[in-house]
Amino acid sequence: MSKTSSVDSSVQGSEGTPKIISVLGASGSVGDSALDIIAGSPDRYRVNALTANRNVGKLARAAVKSGARFAVVADEGFYADLRDALSGHDIEVGAGQSAVEEAAGRSADIVIGAIVGAAGICPTLAALKAGNQVALANKEALVCAGDLVMAETQRLGKPILPVDSEHSAVFQVYERENRAEISKIVLTASGGPFRTWDRDAIAKASIEQALAHPNFSMGNKITIDSASMMNKGLELIEAHHLYGVSADKLKVVVHPQQIIHGMVAYSDGSLLAQLGAPDMRIPVAHCLAWPERAPANTDRISLVEIGQFTFEAPDYERFPCLRLAKEALEAGGSLPNIMNAANEIAVAAFLAGDIAFGGIAELVEKVMAEFVRRDEVGAASDVGDVLALDQAARNVARQILS
Amino acid sequence: MSKTSSVDSSVQGSEGTPKIISVLGASGSVGDSALDIIAGSPDRYRVNALTANRNVGKLARAAVKSGARFAVVADEGFYADLRDALSGHDIEVGAGQSAVEEAAGRSADIVIGAIVGAAGICPTLAALKAGNQVALANKEALVCAGDLVMAETQRLGKPILPVDSEHSAVFQVYERENRAEISKIVLTASGGPFRTWDRDAIAKASIEQALAHPNFSMGNKITIDSASMMNKGLELIEAHHLYGVSADKLKVVVHPQQIIHGMVAYSDGSLLAQLGAPDMRIPVAHCLAWPERAPANTDRISLVEIGQFTFEAPDYERFPCLRLAKEALEAGGSLPNIMNAANEIAVAAFLAGDIAFGGIAELVEKVMAEFVRRDEVGAASDVGDVLALDQAARNVARQILS
Repeated sequence: MSKTSSVDSSVQGSEGTPKIISVLGASGSVGDSALDIIAGSPDRYRVNALTANRNVGKLARAAVKSGARFAVVADEGFYADLRDALSGHDIEVGAGQSAVEEAAGRSADIVIGAIVGAAGICPTLAALKAGNQVALANKEALVCAGDLVMAETQRLGKPILPVDSEHSAVFQVYERENRAEISKIVLTASGGPFRTWDRDAIAKASIEQALAHPNFSMGNKITIDSASMMNKGLELIEAHHLYGVSADKLKVVVHPQQIIHGMVAYSDGSLLAQLGAPDMRIPVAHCLAWPERAPANTDRISLVEIGQFTFEAPDYERFPCLRLAKEALEAGGSLPNIMNAANEIAVAAFLAGDIAFGGIAELVEKVMAEFVRRDEVGAASDVGDVLALDQAARNVARQILS
Repeated sequence: MSKTSSVDSSVQGSEGTPKIISVLGASGSVGDSALDIIAGSPDRYRVNALTANRNVGKLARAAVKSGARFAVVADEGFYADLRDALSGHDIEVGAGQSAVEEAAGRSADIVIGAIVGAAGICPTLAALKAGNQVALANKEALVCAGDLVMAETQRLGKPILPVDSEHSAVFQVYERENRAEISKIVLTASGGPFRTWDRDAIAKASIEQALAHPNFSMGNKITIDSASMMNKGLELIEAHHLYGVSADKLKVVVHPQQIIHGMVAYSDGSLLAQLGAPDMRIPVAHCLAWPERAPANTDRISLVEIGQFTFEAPDYERFPCLRLAKEALEAGGSLPNIMNAANEIAVAAFLAGDIAFGGIAELVEKVMAEFVRRDEVGAASDVGDVLALDQAARNVARQILS
């Protein structure tokens, strides 16, 4: 029970004035969830800007349906398509990276950062610099540029609202005033489709097998990362930045039912947790209403119907990506950024059929080792450094591949 | 994450000034837990008053060890024994019911109300009326006199801190500002020693079998109540008063491992929970430090070692006491008080070997039906009414027994 007895009167969205929401990456699965929650509470939320990478059709339909004021396609080659799709509607149209950043900076109560990959870094920073609170689904903003993003967040004075179900769970039971008494933050992992497979079988897994996530329906990149458990590794790095806890206090527990999403252990022996259906709309609804809560038409669970939860230790041998991420987290500096860039190339290569599933971790490890050898793993001083190193790591990864 | 960014400077116990604690019912298992936590943080906590019913030896030792200022034995017949046991120590000695209430009212930051049974009602009210925040383990204060106790609590402006592990769990994830969005409060139950027994076997269970609680080591009365699941029924009634939620939003889930202690479901689909070892010191430590948290030497759990949690629906046929408590909760008025009094007599009769285990629910049901028949189930207007009805229900129960 928190100590405040009344809700800050400056909070929007509950009575009369709707909260203004922008969605960066509106055509992906997080975008779908956000637009669904927004559509369910038209009195509570109003859309300002929507962006998408290339999916102009979906972006245009979402913009019209949600009453957006500004629609942006990141790939400039699709500008004319978007303009045509929205002709006759009173919706401003933009294209290109700078337009995405402009959309991020337009006045909003919450900017949902759901762009996939390193492309999400600059728009996230742009939203924060413009004074917009960010609900963040983009992992790379924290994994690659966590120090920069958290510095902007502290300047803003409003926390990042995590959209990932695991970090949302932690956020919901994170007692800010008692953060010095946090002894452990636990992220749960489904274990992915290869949870019970042996190492050799995992190494030879097909694309189809790797895309068969047991619980969540997500984009291809994150689904492969879930299968390799790199996703959980990236989440450890995110949690380090979001909650200011050191690597030794960050734990992963494999929980195949994925009902408990995350936990915070305190020094008095209490372990607080958030549970819920594996439905991305639940963390999205939490972000949008925070610090209030609002009814949302999300999936519900029955503990009695589920019957049992199981827990297992993660296996760093069979899931070397998780080990690599822990090493990157412990090393800090730019190693998480390098690892992430290498992993993006490796996953793309796997999805293109160029390498085996086991090749993902091998490539990531080689790229990391190369930058350690070069002694190019120090902390980035600005976003230019981050992006340059991201490119450099991708180049090294491509060279190793070819 | 709550919205406040700093801890109220009036909070004692963290720096310099210790919190002053009194313990009513210091010789029981909750008293043991409280004195253990206090002894572990001598800079943080200081003891003022301790009371016990008759266990003068334990009370005197605890008073000396904890540096208490005032020791009270409720049974006046033990006054001389307590005085002798504490001779030579600078500890004030008292005896009798009025001295217990005086102890409750002596200035303290927290009064732990751990008296067993209806005897705890007046001291709880005395503590609240004197302006002391109460950490409550005594169920009867809420079950029998919930309206009166909550009215005093609201006048005081400080919440009751629940010591029961289930209510402590709920308290820890209860978002006061968002209480209108609570869709469900779930209390977990171990299911007790008869969880898998059929109804006939339960009805014939021996005293020894009924006292074999699978997880917690507690006093005899509460252990029998756990076996009959009356304990969970009483907890539903407590939760109704503590959290202001109606009967239809209060649920019981049988969770034999008893690691999740309680949960709050919100209208957005999130279900928040507190987990921990079955160690009473965990909720006690939470009460004493609240709204802060402080390190405590409590038992810890490993989810991986535990391996699995299971969940079952409660069975109102095999556990008729739970059904009776739900009926009393739904009816409200004085029926919970009547039910509780009848149950105290029934449990005592069972422990004395006078009735079978199945006779507990039968007696409680008969007493409740008798007061319904007499139309004497309206709400009590003051504590005198509560105690008079408690006695009347006990008398009816004794008449039925004889």
